[in-house]
Amino acid sequence: MMNKRGFASDNNAGVHPSILEAIEKANNGHVIAYGDDDYTENAISRLKMEFGDDCDIYFVFIGTAANVLGLSAATKPYNAVICPDTAHIHADECGAPEKFTGCKLLPVSTPDGKLSVELIQQHMHGFGFEHHVQPRVISLTQSTELGTVYTVDEIRPITTYAHEHGLVVHMDGARISNAAASIGCGFNEMTGAAGVDILSFGGTKNGMMYGEAVVFFNKEMGNDFRYRRKQGMQLASKMRYIAVQFEAFLEDELWRKNALHANKMALKLYDAVRTIPGVEITQKVESNAVFARIPEKIISLLQEQYFFYIWDEVTSEVRWMCSFDTTGEDIEGFAALLRKII
Amino acid sequence: MMNKRGFASDNNAGVHPSILEAIEKANNGHVIAYGDDDYTENAISRLKMEFGDDCDIYFVFIGTAANVLGLSAATKPYNAVICPDTAHIHADECGAPEKFTGCKLLPVSTPDGKLSVELIQQHMHGFGFEHHVQPRVISLTQSTELGTVYTVDEIRPITTYAHEHGLVVHMDGARISNAAASIGCGFNEMTGAAGVDILSFGGTKNGMMYGEAVVFFNKEMGNDFRYRRKQGMQLASKMRYIAVQFEAFLEDELWRKNALHANKMALKLYDAVRTIPGVEITQKVESNAVFARIPEKIISLLQEQYFFYIWDEVTSEVRWMCSFDTTGEDIEGFAALLRKII
Amino acid sequence: MMNKRGFASDNNAGVHPSILEAIEKANNGHVIAYGDDDYTENAISRLKMEFGDDCDIYFVFIGTAANVLGLSAATKPYNAVICPDTAHIHADECGAPEKFTGCKLLPVSTPDGKLSVELIQQHMHGFGFEHHVQPRVISLTQSTELGTVYTVDEIRPITTYAHEHGLVVHMDGARISNAAASIGCGFNEMTGAAGVDILSFGGTKNGMMYGEAVVFFNKEMGNDFRYRRKQGMQLASKMRYIAVQFEAFLEDELWRKNALHANKMALKLYDAVRTIPGVEITQKVESNAVFARIPEKIISLLQEQYFFYIWDEVTSEVRWMCSFDTTGEDIEGFAALLRKII
Amino acid sequence: MMNKRGFASDNNAGVHPSILEAIEKANNGHVIAYGDDDYTENAISRLKMEFGDDCDIYFVFIGTAANVLGLSAATKPYNAVICPDTAHIHADECGAPEKFTGCKLLPVSTPDGKLSVELIQQHMHGFGFEHHVQPRVISLTQSTELGTVYTVDEIRPITTYAHEHGLVVHMDGARISNAAASIGCGFNEMTGAAGVDILSFGGTKNGMMYGEAVVFFNKEMGNDFRYRRKQGMQLASKMRYIAVQFEAFLEDELWRKNALHANKMALKLYDAVRTIPGVEITQKVESNAVFARIPEKIISLLQEQYFFYIWDEVTSEVRWMCSFDTTGEDIEGFAALLRKII
Repeated sequence: MMNKRGFASDNNAGVHPSILEAIEKANNGHVIAYGDDDYTENAISRLKMEFGDDCDIYFVFIGTAANVLGLSAATKPYNAVICPDTAHIHADECGAPEKFTGCKLLPVSTPDGKLSVELIQQHMHGFGFEHHVQPRVISLTQSTELGTVYTVDEIRPITTYAHEHGLVVHMDGARISNAAASIGCGFNEMTGAAGVDILSFGGTKNGMMYGEAVVFFNKEMGNDFRYRRKQGMQLASKMRYIAVQFEAFLEDELWRKNALHANKMALKLYDAVRTIPGVEITQKVESNAVFARIPEKIISLLQEQYFFYIWDEVTSEVRWMCSFDTTGEDIEGFAALLRKII
Repeated sequence: MMNKRGFASDNNAGVHPSILEAIEKANNGHVIAYGDDDYTENAISRLKMEFGDDCDIYFVFIGTAANVLGLSAATKPYNAVICPDTAHIHADECGAPEKFTGCKLLPVSTPDGKLSVELIQQHMHGFGFEHHVQPRVISLTQSTELGTVYTVDEIRPITTYAHEHGLVVHMDGARISNAAASIGCGFNEMTGAAGVDILSFGGTKNGMMYGEAVVFFNKEMGNDFRYRRKQGMQLASKMRYIAVQFEAFLEDELWRKNALHANKMALKLYDAVRTIPGVEITQKVESNAVFARIPEKIISLLQEQYFFYIWDEVTSEVRWMCSFDTTGEDIEGFAALLRKII
Repeated sequence: MMNKRGFASDNNAGVHPSILEAIEKANNGHVIAYGDDDYTENAISRLKMEFGDDCDIYFVFIGTAANVLGLSAATKPYNAVICPDTAHIHADECGAPEKFTGCKLLPVSTPDGKLSVELIQQHMHGFGFEHHVQPRVISLTQSTELGTVYTVDEIRPITTYAHEHGLVVHMDGARISNAAASIGCGFNEMTGAAGVDILSFGGTKNGMMYGEAVVFFNKEMGNDFRYRRKQGMQLASKMRYIAVQFEAFLEDELWRKNALHANKMALKLYDAVRTIPGVEITQKVESNAVFARIPEKIISLLQEQYFFYIWDEVTSEVRWMCSFDTTGEDIEGFAALLRKII
Repeated sequence: MMNKRGFASDNNAGVHPSILEAIEKANNGHVIAYGDDDYTENAISRLKMEFGDDCDIYFVFIGTAANVLGLSAATKPYNAVICPDTAHIHADECGAPEKFTGCKLLPVSTPDGKLSVELIQQHMHGFGFEHHVQPRVISLTQSTELGTVYTVDEIRPITTYAHEHGLVVHMDGARISNAAASIGCGFNEMTGAAGVDILSFGGTKNGMMYGEAVVFFNKEMGNDFRYRRKQGMQLASKMRYIAVQFEAFLEDELWRKNALHANKMALKLYDAVRTIPGVEITQKVESNAVFARIPEKIISLLQEQYFFYIWDEVTSEVRWMCSFDTTGEDIEGFAALLRKII
């Protein structure tokens, strides 16, 4: 029997068949462990076709690790990381960045999950004052935790500002495919080419099984990353099974197809529910998430049939995520149920 | 073309077909992420059939993480961990235990990778003296890094001694299948039932793709482990793919079949090479490893055709590991080559 | 020539003569190092006359260490500490709490530096949710960084609320003398007797040379503190010189005399400047600090003769601290200058 | 009544009168806290007369902190520190280096507490291998924990070797005065001029009350040390009282007079006891310590009148430390008692 699809998270979905197939094909005899194998070399070469040759790329298991270890490469323990207060590193990693890097996170309240030079400035002080943590990294999430997407023109001023002030820019790209699909560009345009220094490049929310890549556009920062990765408990022995997933992910732009589909489903969901009385859409639908305020009393009724998460209990705001495998029927069934219950 | 098998490590092997099949079957619709799903629940139930109900079990990505996070659950930063100087936690984890737990490791020089009460005692001092780290954990590896295996009768005095002195026992079971197969027992006999408090239960070196289980026989120590795991960057979103590997691993004792085979191949290798002039076997062959001193000048010639690692450059000692997929032909080919080159 | 007194900070003052005299008297022959001496025993006994016998007391070098190590005794790395955003632990310790404990700090914006149950509640969520840090400590500062003072009736609801929710209360008492002098009570009434679990008891801002005491009213939390102190680089070898300062500090309520004087000087300053046009007092004057908004252009002129710190560059708010050695002439001279410059 | 002098440790002694006098003289009005004052500036200038201008100097509270924070400035968490197994950082700091830096310590067994290039080499491997910690620092103690002293000619080959291999040299100079007095040189000859990169410069064991200096001959390593010091809980607010101790310590070579005296007393003690039957001197007497094996049963009898520490319970080895205030009568009395009891 098929497990039912819901709208809880894009990581509730399974693995895209092409990616599973790549794993199966890699299950072939012996290769050197820990990444010293052709599969890994090929995958990195393939990734460099996206990001250019002048970067260093390392695989880790998950996004939290990509974020935390990437930040550790850019910081000393007395540094601070400026991020939106909705950022995964701040709200959803159980303090892993603080524990592992020693740094303080300086959260910024934002209406839409997006930082701007103006918003960042509230934390740009205390430099040279030893009682104060020293801001060192600005961390953006693309697409954001609220489903919004930075345009390249919004990223560039932030990276310019950062570099002018001696800071570097980290991007949490757990849903970077959805962002790239949304604005119709490639990965590099909104990362390395836009001045990002370190990228957590994720695929698990878009059809992969596990594995994330840390991309250092600032190669100096990455030059000792293999030690950080190992000490950070993120060096996979059977690395090939991560590597081939990335190759399949990039092959024929599978990532874009998946992301475009998920984004399209989100728009469809938006269209299907926004006119239902009592439903108030709270964020622009720019990627694969729909945020809405709905009557509190109907939430549990809805969840019985389609699981999803409450984003804010106080305001009765919920989050509905679409995945690469969400179907039109899922949307229609859900919207019909919502309309009926309301 | 098939990748050639060598004797470098059991984690150079791929994934056993039954385990890959389990992964494929789990690729079915949506399930709640982060382990709140039936696959994970079932796998834990299945593991408890091995270890008894009175334990807590958590999946992480790799053995280093199982070790480090398990130790973190048992220690405060001023504690120390007594282990053989060959232990993975001491020699092969790039300082991850120190970085993550803050603890000092107190290594013990051993002839065969095995601790004993007598060997442990050299570090059993300084209790109550605040200038000195406070010993808290004794860490055993089963089977050891040198391929030797503790009998249950060797484990029990250590755990008794530990508990009498207020310490706990951690077991690194990265190759626990090989040990259980070697002494013909089940997992619990040499872990929980023998007094072990925390176990890193591994399968990747015996046919799994990734994933390790931390088993807390001392449940109090594990009662906050889910926070440690998340903060330790080891909480898999698509947990089901780890869970089902463990189920397949235990099903019909696949683990034992694989381990018995690897152990048998090691014995076969031992038999095939021990009489070759210039080859000196340096450790008892009790699991799937063969350690030998061979003439230094032939090492690179051998490695060209069958990759393996030099264990000790000074003494020209090498390690040959057998895997679940090592074949009799591999052994014969290798032994013939060795005989010929010598 | 005498170094001039200013209003920069109470730790710009020197050492009270009685305390210096106590140090001199202790300079007598040999005593066992690291606190195993009669001076230290006597000082702890004397402190227990203030706090009752049912507590544990440890000396460290400074307030930052008392705070950080006290918090480390109450937390595991996945915990969080709720505090005002003006708290020393958040704003002035260069990330030491995060680095040493691994915990995240959850700052609360407050008008006057004081927490309340209502203000705390914004961070009281995420319990049991492994993606979220687990709140564990509420940290109060008495007197606050803004010079305000909690009454006992304001502390008690917070400690009750904390204990009802499984949290503990830490108090940063760097200026606890000023608070006790202000509300006319003893130390214990607003700490142990009011439900505080861990206290950083400071004297350096009130006439001591160096040294701070960590008081554990919750003795279970302190039972391994001597290891944390040593590992935290805070175990003084010549402990007697810290110990005797505390004895002198408590003798004949020297602490209260000093604090009453400093508080009185602050009130005098308040009276002298509040009616000057262009001076706006921004906080209640309840201890030894006066906060005021003054015209930006006069700040540097004033600072040339009396050094003090700008609290908020944006709003042109400044802080004037009085000390145990501030004189009436200092106040008069400063007020006259201020009036003249404006 | 005078506290009796013993032979437990040079930090059981009190403070030299000249140093106490300097503290008293500094107790004069207000100066800016945290080291931004003339006393501190002058003390650093005075120290630079010893070490040359091309170094950076920071005060901390104690030797453990000087060691740990100095090491943190030279390392990343995946590094390792090679040191004698008797080193204070390894044996007496309760794991502070591991906790604070994340690094592993690689202890070397030595007969006399002294490292040599030959002894160091056992740990000079694993470079570039990510599973292994990366050796980065060689830490020497001068004089050693066993009372022996490195000549400049013994230090130089170690620093040369270190630099040739990309490592740096840290020196724990808790008793550096005794070493300099012993070999009749100045501080710089056996530190900066001999190739040492980072020095923990201590005076507390030679007549100071508290305070230690970290000297960076490698200035690049020290360029962010003020943040490390603050985050490391070692920034004194009333810094002047540390600073003036160092000035007094250096004035007219008070340090050398004190150290020469303590060393002389140790030689006198050596002469007085070495011929007593049953007393076996176990280390060369090159500074202010005498190590001896004596009959176990007499130890407690001796300790009743003159306290000292047992160094090794197994071999009945004891340590007798002389101080700047040890008198000839102390030696004679002790030797007479020892002779009598034996």
